Amino acid sequence: MIGRLNHVAIAVPDLDAAAAQYRDTLGAKVGAPQDEPDHGVTVVFIELPNTKIELLYPLGEASPIERFLEKNPAGGIHHICYEVKDIQAAKKQLETQGARVLGSGEPKIGAHGKPVLFLHPKDFNGTLVELEQV
Amino acid sequence: MIGRLNHVAIAVPDLDAAAAQYRDTLGAKVGAPQDEPDHGVTVVFIELPNTKIELLYPLGEASPIERFLEKNPAGGIHHICYEVKDIQAAKKQLETQGARVLGSGEPKIGAHGKPVLFLHPKDFNGTLVELEQV
Repeated sequence: MIGRLNHVAIAVPDLDAAAAQYRDTLGAKVGAPQDEPDHGVTVVFIELPNTKIELLYPLGEASPIERFLEKNPAGGIHHICYEVKDIQAAKKQLETQGARVLGSGEPKIGAHGKPVLFLHPKDFNGTLVELEQV
Repeated sequence: MIGRLNHVAIAVPDLDAAAAQYRDTLGAKVGAPQDEPDHGVTVVFIELPNTKIELLYPLGEASPIERFLEKNPAGGIHHICYEVKDIQAAKKQLETQGARVLGSGEPKIGAHGKPVLFLHPKDFNGTLVELEQV
């Protein structure tokens, strides 16, 4: 069911510093910050040859990243995203196997404009897993 | 400097269950468990089309994963690994920029038989970063 690893998302306490570090210290290709007000985050994409790293920073009130950074002040890996071809089929298969979809259980439009859903970290080895239909 | 994302490593409390979940629930291509006594881990590789997920489980006394699982009993993402062409050049560049290499500071032979080093998570947004020369 799962295909490519679309991205690894890292929540960071200082977006400019983290972007500069990936650009200057690690020599990676780093994009410009993009505000995603619908998702409560500002995002910087780091393009690796085979996948992306997504640096996340809170935007606005009640950002989903805010509490994560309170618990992890230095930052940390927030989630990983796998690609799926058919998100409704994926959802059905997962629920049949007892995996919990977060929120309403219905896919939403994610930060890349594509349908996504998140799976409960407790069902997946303490790892927040996003599925994105591509 | 950094190239491909070589793998994402996830420490898991039950290797068989985690491998079965990736194979059966997520429909991924899952390898057989491999003991790596020199590194204190048993590893299962999950081959995605563009990268790998590495499931890690403690092996023997004083496994580096043991304490991580005590802190994170459900498991969690342990590290991410970026490929570099020249690990000595990478080490020099990183140290010049003030990033700390863990352990002796010298690259060691990693679980894939290639030179690796680990960077201090506090210097990289709370993320343990492995560099592997490929």
